[in-house]
Amino acid sequence: MQRANDKILFTPGPLTTSHTVKQAMLRDLGSRDFEFIRTVQEVRDGLLEIAGVTVTDKGKQRYDAIPVQGSGTFAIEAVLSSTIPRDGKILVLVNGAYGKRILEIASTLGIEHQAIVVPENEALDTRALEAVLLKDDQAAKKITHVAVVHCETTTGIMNPVEEIGRVVKRFARVYFVDAMSSFGAVPLNIEKAGIDYLVSSANKCIEGVPGFAFVLASRDAIIRTEGYARSVSLNLLAQLNGLENNGQFRFTPPTHALLAFRQALRELEEEGGVAGRNKRYTFNQTTLVQGMRELGFKEYLKPSDQGVIITSFCFPTHTNFAFNMFYEKLSEKGYVIYPGKVSNADCFRIGSIGRIDQAEIKALLRAVKETLAEMNITLTTH
Amino acid sequence: MQRANDKILFTPGPLTTSHTVKQAMLRDLGSRDFEFIRTVQEVRDGLLEIAGVTVTDKGKQRYDAIPVQGSGTFAIEAVLSSTIPRDGKILVLVNGAYGKRILEIASTLGIEHQAIVVPENEALDTRALEAVLLKDDQAAKKITHVAVVHCETTTGIMNPVEEIGRVVKRFARVYFVDAMSSFGAVPLNIEKAGIDYLVSSANKCIEGVPGFAFVLASRDAIIRTEGYARSVSLNLLAQLNGLENNGQFRFTPPTHALLAFRQALRELEEEGGVAGRNKRYTFNQTTLVQGMRELGFKEYLKPSDQGVIITSFCFPTHTNFAFNMFYEKLSEKGYVIYPGKVSNADCFRIGSIGRIDQAEIKALLRAVKETLAEMNITLTTH
Repeated sequence: MQRANDKILFTPGPLTTSHTVKQAMLRDLGSRDFEFIRTVQEVRDGLLEIAGVTVTDKGKQRYDAIPVQGSGTFAIEAVLSSTIPRDGKILVLVNGAYGKRILEIASTLGIEHQAIVVPENEALDTRALEAVLLKDDQAAKKITHVAVVHCETTTGIMNPVEEIGRVVKRFARVYFVDAMSSFGAVPLNIEKAGIDYLVSSANKCIEGVPGFAFVLASRDAIIRTEGYARSVSLNLLAQLNGLENNGQFRFTPPTHALLAFRQALRELEEEGGVAGRNKRYTFNQTTLVQGMRELGFKEYLKPSDQGVIITSFCFPTHTNFAFNMFYEKLSEKGYVIYPGKVSNADCFRIGSIGRIDQAEIKALLRAVKETLAEMNITLTTH
Repeated sequence: MQRANDKILFTPGPLTTSHTVKQAMLRDLGSRDFEFIRTVQEVRDGLLEIAGVTVTDKGKQRYDAIPVQGSGTFAIEAVLSSTIPRDGKILVLVNGAYGKRILEIASTLGIEHQAIVVPENEALDTRALEAVLLKDDQAAKKITHVAVVHCETTTGIMNPVEEIGRVVKRFARVYFVDAMSSFGAVPLNIEKAGIDYLVSSANKCIEGVPGFAFVLASRDAIIRTEGYARSVSLNLLAQLNGLENNGQFRFTPPTHALLAFRQALRELEEEGGVAGRNKRYTFNQTTLVQGMRELGFKEYLKPSDQGVIITSFCFPTHTNFAFNMFYEKLSEKGYVIYPGKVSNADCFRIGSIGRIDQAEIKALLRAVKETLAEMNITLTTH
């Protein structure tokens, strides 16, 4: 794949993107210009298609795509601050830092919240959720929203958002999925999963550049949120209404990032859509794990919980292993990995997403091998 | 100047930028990578220099530059939501839509607010401000913050932020200036003007691409705001602390927009800094006004209030004039102007900022002349 001399990014984003995606930014479009408005529409329609929504005449489809300036966290906060009424309450299923972040946002916004927390190396299931919602139904029925992270980037674990969705819908709550790291690479039909709000970001599996995130919102849900917004910048319904009225963002959009993203969507389609991308990432991830195991590394998660997006590896117990040196030496060789985020175990992470393929994964594995040799580390293979 | 085949943007932003600024985006840097961290530091130091702050050892200088993801409005909201205590009150001086937007944000955030409103074609002065602050001092002393827009993009009017600052400081209030459209092109020493918080955006007079905005904050002021933040994404003090701790944004930064901005800062310096840029924009604006007058157009503002950033022109009274057609015909010729925003007069706007020079202004004037002829409009010159 064509690339500049930059280091290759094995991170959860920003990622290595294609040269053609970056080249799409060599333009200056006016934010009210017809061509830019068409670009925004193409991006919004493309996002819906990825989520399995049939794009029909305006207003007839059941979901809308709403781009939001800023990073993914901005869009998460936009959902919480715009769609939960003052007397609402959110139940968050947590098995990592991004679940906790949803709680932190709720807390900062003064939104009542509750959590079901499981260890970071355990996928969430529906039993505890059913119990909590049943209890809530029998009591004051305060919980209005349920939130979960699809792929917890903390570890790389996948949570069963469809199963969880069936329970949330059975109990008639609003369902919010943080699909930041998975959207575009893990097949998911938003409607079948019963999701009301899904968030992801431009610089994840669709392989655009950072600058905006987006919310896919059920029209039924969002049209009922008039007056809920606690912010001007992050007002989702106002953002949607602005886009529907004249095709424009309310406030200056990152025009270049949108041009890049349109190109990224086209390249996703060329690769065979979500299925095609999933195939490449799966191949990347299995090659990575196989190679790392051969070098003596162990994954933090058990294989059945592991997604194809990012993998946490335990620090080897060898006395010569020091993560900062390991990281620096790989970085000097042109390979950027990612620190760990697990709270109770020493890990580092390697992403398998972005414009990387077998060649890059194998080059990384060679660099890891060299680095271990330089650090005088010999690991026992399992 | 080198450019692609894009239309030339005579707008308040996104603007026409240099090819070299856009080319700086043809890279993918990791957000934790040393080179990116250095880029962020160079950008932050460059912003302080533009504001006349001497960059010394960390923590010793009196101001800090805090980039914020999103559009300019996000940074305005960040200042309001992060720096005003729960029992604080903001007084906003208003002569246009951007002053009103500050009020709207305060209102949405539940912040007590008061306004001094003058007509959109009148620059603000200090008399009413003095009276209000005097009265507030004699009463409960509720006003904690005073806000004003430097260049009101609604009309292009310049407000005397230094004079206003002297009054604000005499009354010992926190002073917030929205310098969105002026920063980098209108000389302003932030410390001498007594400004505690100044906001501008990447895609204005520094001629970067959109994707982030920034706040220049007095250290004395911002260190006292612990616990004030009403948002996670827009928490200014947390953003500053993150940057000071490890040089990184708390949440994914728009890496490409920052690379473009670093290049834009270098090109600003090559042009002679703020003075050099001011000279070019002044020449652009006077050429524009001279030419438009010769074609029979009249400015909305009186010349003494008019800034060099953007100029509002009154709709001609000729019966054949229809703005949409005028706009479209200019756009087809490759020149993008901007609709008006004045509430009580029909105007359109033409920006004189971005990577445009005499050649582009003159080409625009020729296109305006041709367009008038096509529309069978002959105007009386004044």
